[in-house]
Amino acid sequence: MRAHDLDQILVTGTANVYYLTGVWCEPFERMLALHVKADGDMKLYANRMFALQGLTDVPMVEYEDTDDCIAVLAPDMLPGRLGIDKTWHSHFTIRLMQARPDIVPALGSAPLDEARLIKDAEELELMRVSSRMNVEVCGRIASALTEGVTEKAIQSLYNETALELGASGPSFTPLVCFGANGAEPHHDSDRTPLRQGDTVIMDVGLLWKHYCSDMTRTVHFGEVSDEQKHVRDIVTAANRAGIAMCRPGVRMKDIDRAARKVIEDAGYGAYFTHRTGHGIGLDEHEFPDVSSVSEVVARPGMIFSVEPGIYLPGRFGVRVEDLVAVTEDGCEVLTRYDWQ
Amino acid sequence: MRAHDLDQILVTGTANVYYLTGVWCEPFERMLALHVKADGDMKLYANRMFALQGLTDVPMVEYEDTDDCIAVLAPDMLPGRLGIDKTWHSHFTIRLMQARPDIVPALGSAPLDEARLIKDAEELELMRVSSRMNVEVCGRIASALTEGVTEKAIQSLYNETALELGASGPSFTPLVCFGANGAEPHHDSDRTPLRQGDTVIMDVGLLWKHYCSDMTRTVHFGEVSDEQKHVRDIVTAANRAGIAMCRPGVRMKDIDRAARKVIEDAGYGAYFTHRTGHGIGLDEHEFPDVSSVSEVVARPGMIFSVEPGIYLPGRFGVRVEDLVAVTEDGCEVLTRYDWQ
Repeated sequence: MRAHDLDQILVTGTANVYYLTGVWCEPFERMLALHVKADGDMKLYANRMFALQGLTDVPMVEYEDTDDCIAVLAPDMLPGRLGIDKTWHSHFTIRLMQARPDIVPALGSAPLDEARLIKDAEELELMRVSSRMNVEVCGRIASALTEGVTEKAIQSLYNETALELGASGPSFTPLVCFGANGAEPHHDSDRTPLRQGDTVIMDVGLLWKHYCSDMTRTVHFGEVSDEQKHVRDIVTAANRAGIAMCRPGVRMKDIDRAARKVIEDAGYGAYFTHRTGHGIGLDEHEFPDVSSVSEVVARPGMIFSVEPGIYLPGRFGVRVEDLVAVTEDGCEVLTRYDWQ
Repeated sequence: MRAHDLDQILVTGTANVYYLTGVWCEPFERMLALHVKADGDMKLYANRMFALQGLTDVPMVEYEDTDDCIAVLAPDMLPGRLGIDKTWHSHFTIRLMQARPDIVPALGSAPLDEARLIKDAEELELMRVSSRMNVEVCGRIASALTEGVTEKAIQSLYNETALELGASGPSFTPLVCFGANGAEPHHDSDRTPLRQGDTVIMDVGLLWKHYCSDMTRTVHFGEVSDEQKHVRDIVTAANRAGIAMCRPGVRMKDIDRAARKVIEDAGYGAYFTHRTGHGIGLDEHEFPDVSSVSEVVARPGMIFSVEPGIYLPGRFGVRVEDLVAVTEDGCEVLTRYDWQ
């Protein structure tokens, strides 16, 4: 906090609060806020309905649905700069500013982002298990690809199988995209049936003790064109090139560049429309971005995705995503498996 | 907007953007913002990856993952008050304030809340279908309650059955709570097995063409104590008393009072720890609250939940929730069915 000139921050993201207190609470539209001072003093403000009493040693102030939660919180804030967690709903921030014009809201997530960036041994092991389970479930849904099956059915099978194997659920809505739907990187799975010659994208992840996995495999169903094969080969090579760069001292932008160069050199640069990856841990997407503008330098204990893609509108898409954990001298791929 | 002294607002919630543009986009951590001026002029700022081009007639500015999205947005904002949608992530608001110190952020969701508050005939019909399907799926999972089945298994069955019947998915993670778990109003379903004598809460909803349903049924499994029966009778009576109040001209707080009074009179007031209900439509929880402090007056076309509950820590909980649509002279219960 001191490195960011912050004497106080409001920690409000579910995973951030969990990281500091051990309490997992998804507040939806209600307010959950942990006030942290630079001297380490903390106080948690929570709706009584969350029933958090007794679950943490952190002192707690409870409010009720009929209270104005900002009126409960505002008097305890120090004047001056107050770091605000990135995803806190803006109406809370604006109401707090109105109640306390002497407070200057500032970006406040960096201390938590930086702490969570480096996974310790226990976290790394949870991430390994999460990915191992994900690989297993992804393999099972790939085996269930039959002519006429719908994206929704495969999506649903993923969710069921993840639960069966002991996950607490998917870490995000599984993206299952057949044929032209794969050309939309965030296509919402629908009732599109699988047809011979489809390229199939499966972008899936699950939750193991709050730790997220995430991987994407692209497979061909039946006979496909030479271009479909060629594009998948390019993306696979880009994924490999990105992973090959992952070691301490390398910047995120260098990893992005390595992956992107393969796709650009093959003439498909205009069709790789997103960053190469993102950090992951308690949240599905967390700091840092693996993008062409990120100066963040890889260090042992960082875990992020490497997921280049090529999207040909109206035709098909390909994405290949692995998670890597940076080690002392390279990286460990958490999502390694054979059938892809 | 003029009634709220707003010459410009940034509409950023997925459902709000859909309501005004017909485009459904869940941006996760990326920025999606529709700038609306009081003269009706609109412009949509979206990541190129969302692939929204051509899906709406609203003029669009696309940015890329490597752009600073706030730098793209900020120059187009007018100076002075700018209404900000309630759930916009605070880091966007704070960065916009830093880029444009001449802008004063204000609460900006009221115009959309008020527009969406009254459902038109088409929306009402979608809400009816959504609830009808939800009633059907809830009945099916209730039939699957057998000794030893886990909360997770029933939760998973809900999700699968909803998809089977044509829903696009659950509108929220189904809450299935056995025995003492029901005493936590927002218990996360786990591997607790169903035992004889358990009170079971099922709080479920699904999505039909983006419109949400939501209902809660509490059932008894096997022989239960007189107190379990008594508490369920009280909550059912509270639900009925709340619904009986729903007609044009009545304030939300009157509905809350009617339901709460039944529980207070029975001596369980301290165990009804949340508001009586919430608006619903494109979002699972939307304006207004049905709470003891809400002065909002019921009008035809409003749809909200009536969901009193009693939670006895460490023992069991009961909640009974219906959705009502206010009519010209009373209300229509969208979740009526017999087996409860």
